[in-house]
Amino acid sequence: MAMPQAVKVVEVGPRDGLQNEKDFVPTAVKIELVNRLSAAGFRNVESASFVSPKWVPQMADGADVMAGIERRPGTIYSVLTPNLRGFEGALAARADEIVIFGAASEAFSQRNINCSIAESIARFEPVAQAAREHGVRIRGSVSCALGCPYQGEVPVSSVIDVVERFAALGCDEIDIADTIGVGTPRRTREVFAAVTEVFPREQLSGHFHDTYGQALANIYAALLEGIEIFHASVAGLGGCPYAKGATGNVATEDVLYLLQGLGIETGIDLAQVVAIGDFISTSIDKPNNSRAGKALLAKARSEQGSCV
Amino acid sequence: MAMPQAVKVVEVGPRDGLQNEKDFVPTAVKIELVNRLSAAGFRNVESASFVSPKWVPQMADGADVMAGIERRPGTIYSVLTPNLRGFEGALAARADEIVIFGAASEAFSQRNINCSIAESIARFEPVAQAAREHGVRIRGSVSCALGCPYQGEVPVSSVIDVVERFAALGCDEIDIADTIGVGTPRRTREVFAAVTEVFPREQLSGHFHDTYGQALANIYAALLEGIEIFHASVAGLGGCPYAKGATGNVATEDVLYLLQGLGIETGIDLAQVVAIGDFISTSIDKPNNSRAGKALLAKARSEQGSCV
Repeated sequence: MAMPQAVKVVEVGPRDGLQNEKDFVPTAVKIELVNRLSAAGFRNVESASFVSPKWVPQMADGADVMAGIERRPGTIYSVLTPNLRGFEGALAARADEIVIFGAASEAFSQRNINCSIAESIARFEPVAQAAREHGVRIRGSVSCALGCPYQGEVPVSSVIDVVERFAALGCDEIDIADTIGVGTPRRTREVFAAVTEVFPREQLSGHFHDTYGQALANIYAALLEGIEIFHASVAGLGGCPYAKGATGNVATEDVLYLLQGLGIETGIDLAQVVAIGDFISTSIDKPNNSRAGKALLAKARSEQGSCV
Repeated sequence: MAMPQAVKVVEVGPRDGLQNEKDFVPTAVKIELVNRLSAAGFRNVESASFVSPKWVPQMADGADVMAGIERRPGTIYSVLTPNLRGFEGALAARADEIVIFGAASEAFSQRNINCSIAESIARFEPVAQAAREHGVRIRGSVSCALGCPYQGEVPVSSVIDVVERFAALGCDEIDIADTIGVGTPRRTREVFAAVTEVFPREQLSGHFHDTYGQALANIYAALLEGIEIFHASVAGLGGCPYAKGATGNVATEDVLYLLQGLGIETGIDLAQVVAIGDFISTSIDKPNNSRAGKALLAKARSEQGSCV
């Protein structure tokens, strides 16, 4: 399997990264974040969520965010839609892509949404149908694909099962998500090797969390399996709800640094992303969780400050 | 190239990790650190340094540390020796292995020790000869092997040159060190593929820094080249002197978690190492820089605290 020559990096910071922030992030900050990200070259920005504000108050301003951003031609602005009501919001907000989701872990599904995996995905049928009718792209996100906080190991057959259900709903893209960051390269390769047997490789993405520090090793492993789409969150926005204080989404800066070193094209300007990571970390008063981001910021500052 | 089935992890925290700490770490803490590490199963612990206390005051108590530790049979206790005087200290302290060093970057060598690479390594000739005469193992550490803070790119030929010079001095083991953490997997594989042509693969080690978040991806890449020895620092002890606030040595816990996931034997108990990471971070009042360590500590604490 040849490594891809180009990769699409999907920036998920504005939605997945910010959704668990306790203090409300002003709508203007969210809008600036999305605008700066698309200006830096991201072709896909997960920008908002149309879930009930009772469940995720941080995302209550999804319609305002989508109304306020500047649309860059060719950029896909995605939003999360848990149900038909959410889809209607997404449609009104002119989202280019909706994100639907399901866990590959039966225990996770039962415990979090009180139904089976099969039921949880069947509930998206009307949403997917409406999206298809309106020509809106559909992305299916398979959570807990490499492990589950409740049942531990997740069989590859469960991942395949969810992928096939999403494929049947007409998904244009399917994410294999290591929601709790427990995966390591061997398992990552096994899962992607199996999933590419049932869904086109070029429409599969890897969504890795860096909770155990494994995300970049897993991305390299997935690249060796020919995967061409990866999710990342600027400044590593988004902690891990299952281990307080632990790291969540892999940082975009670290992913771009890796891809740059491998000679893989992304069309994204790393220096701009480092500056965006600094902007959003400062804005929400949280530590910057990107190692490459921190190193490049420190380097830039020491060069500015030095007398050489 | 088959991945190794077993790997030797060399713990460098007590020396490489602690040496840049500003506040003096009490000798008793250093001794406890080394003892707990060897009890956790490490077969090689870099334990002290016999450099001038004027240069590295933190390491001034090397003889006391070596005198105070409990020697576990079969464990190699290594010490850094910059010169013959250092070697005499190491010999008196009954070190099992001395570490000598040289940069693969001409600019780094000139700027840091004011001589050429060739001269810097020639200076170790009497040290190496004395070690050979006394049956003390010799490890040669090639710094800046994947990049240099001054000259940027480092040619593979320079790395080969230093490896050959260390081999001629009778080194039992040679470290390929990414001192500033700028390497990525492609370069890592290129360098190891070239170096294994001139020195036995099973005596080569990978020493990676996580400054740009790339260390585990590089370790996975080196494993794919058949490398069987890796350095790591518990809790990620040791910052990066070239970028204040940035990450230094890769954290041992993260490396062990990776190897465990790949089914590679180390003989080391990860749970004990997580506890040691907590002990030393608390002792020196520094944040724990291991992602796996933090996640496992958070998980253990939430399980203790939960009512399930």
